[in-house]
Amino acid sequence: MKIDVLSLFPEMFEGVLGSSILKKAAEKQAASYRVINFRDYADNKHHTVDDYPYGGGAGMVLKPQPIFDAVETLQGEATVKPRVILLCPQGERYTQKKAEELAREEHLIFVCGHYEGYDERIREHVVTDEISLGDYVLTGGELGAMVIIDSVVRLLPGVLGNEASPVLDSYSSGLLEHPHYTRPADFRGMKVPDALLSGNHKKIEEWRMKESLRRTWMRRPDLLDSYSLSEVEKKLLAEIQKEQ
Amino acid sequence: MKIDVLSLFPEMFEGVLGSSILKKAAEKQAASYRVINFRDYADNKHHTVDDYPYGGGAGMVLKPQPIFDAVETLQGEATVKPRVILLCPQGERYTQKKAEELAREEHLIFVCGHYEGYDERIREHVVTDEISLGDYVLTGGELGAMVIIDSVVRLLPGVLGNEASPVLDSYSSGLLEHPHYTRPADFRGMKVPDALLSGNHKKIEEWRMKESLRRTWMRRPDLLDSYSLSEVEKKLLAEIQKEQ
Repeated sequence: MKIDVLSLFPEMFEGVLGSSILKKAAEKQAASYRVINFRDYADNKHHTVDDYPYGGGAGMVLKPQPIFDAVETLQGEATVKPRVILLCPQGERYTQKKAEELAREEHLIFVCGHYEGYDERIREHVVTDEISLGDYVLTGGELGAMVIIDSVVRLLPGVLGNEASPVLDSYSSGLLEHPHYTRPADFRGMKVPDALLSGNHKKIEEWRMKESLRRTWMRRPDLLDSYSLSEVEKKLLAEIQKEQ
Repeated sequence: MKIDVLSLFPEMFEGVLGSSILKKAAEKQAASYRVINFRDYADNKHHTVDDYPYGGGAGMVLKPQPIFDAVETLQGEATVKPRVILLCPQGERYTQKKAEELAREEHLIFVCGHYEGYDERIREHVVTDEISLGDYVLTGGELGAMVIIDSVVRLLPGVLGNEASPVLDSYSSGLLEHPHYTRPADFRGMKVPDALLSGNHKKIEEWRMKESLRRTWMRRPDLLDSYSLSEVEKKLLAEIQKEQ
C-alpha cells in the first residue's frame, strides 16, 4: 500500500512512521510512506498556503491551489485511483469497519490541515472521504492521519507477526475483552482469580466468557444491541445482572 | 501542567511533542512532558515487562510490577494527586467534555501498552481513567496518548494564540461548521457562493447559519437532538428540508 501524507508539519510523522509495526511494514514492503509539505506546491512567490475567509471572521482558510496541485501530482503518478482522505471534525466518525475498507485500497492520500479551515472546493472536488476520529478538537489533521495509518497498516497481510496478539482486538468478537492476568499470582496481596489458576479449561473459558459479558454490559451496553447472544451467554448475562 | 507518559516506544513521541502547539506550550511553560520507558522500572534481571496470560491463550500481558513501580515513583514526586490514564479499547470513549475535564488537572500520567494486554490489577489499583479514542483498534496506546495530550494542552490558558482560530472548533457551538472559502473567487471555474462576496453582513450571517444547519442535519443529525434551535434556525431548517 502506498501512503502519501500532505502536511505543513512533516517532522511530526518521523517517530510514529519510524517505529514498531509501521516501521516493520515498510521494511517488509507491505507499506511505503511519503510525507510531503504541500507548501512546496504553492505557486505564489511567498509560498502562502492560506488566506482570509470570504465573508470575514477569525481564522484562516487553506487555499485550494496548493492542495489541488499536490494531490493531482500524486494522482498523476498513481496506477490506481487513490482515496483522498481529509481529516476534519465534520467528517464521518472513524470505525474499525472503515479501517477494514481502507485496508483493501492500494493507495491512500491524507490531507492534513493545521489550525486552518479548508476551502470548500477542496472538499467537493479533491477529497473522497472526510473522516473524524471522534467528537473532540485537535490542533491539526496529523494525529488523525497517524491513527488511521496505524489502524489500516496493521490489517495488511503479513504485517502483524506473532508479537501482536489478538489480545487488543476487542471489536472483532463484538464484545469487550475479559480481564487478563499474568504472574505473579499474588502481587502485594492482589490475587489472580481462582478460575484462571485452576488448570480446568472449561472453567477458564466460562470465566472469560462471563467477564467479557460483564465488562460489555457495564461499560458498553450498546454493543450488546448488535450482538446475538448464545444460550450459554444469555444464562451468564442473567447471572451477572443478579450479581451486580 | 505536568504530563508524564509511560511507554515502551518513547521515540514515537519526539516529532509530535516537539512541533507546533505542543512545542510552544512547553516553551511558554504551560506544559512540560516526560516520556519514560517503563522497562527501566522492571526489577527482574532481563527487564521483562510482559509475561504469558494465566489460563492460556495468545498474546502477552503487561506485568503489574514495572507499571506499579513507575507510577508510584512519579506519584511520589507529585505535589497534587495525578490522574493516571490508561489507553485501551475497553475505556470510555473520549470526548471534548473529557478533554475539558482533564485540562483542569495539574498532572496527567499516561500508561501506554503496546500489543499486550494489561494485567487487571493495573486497571484496578493504579489507573484512575480508562479511555478509548473510538471504536477502532490501534497497535498501542501511544497515539491515543498523543491525541489526548494535543486536545488537552491546546485548552490550557495562554497556549493558543491568534494563529489558532476557532475555525476548527465545531463542537463549541453544538453544530458543525459552515463551509469556508478563500481567494480566488473563481478557481478553475469553481466559484465562491454569491452571499459571501456580497459584503452584506446580514446575508453572510444567514448563509453561514443555514449552511451550518444543513451540514449538521445531513451529516450528524444526532447533534440536533441536544441543540435548542432558535426561531430563525427553525425556519432555516425547514427550508433546508424542503431543498434537499
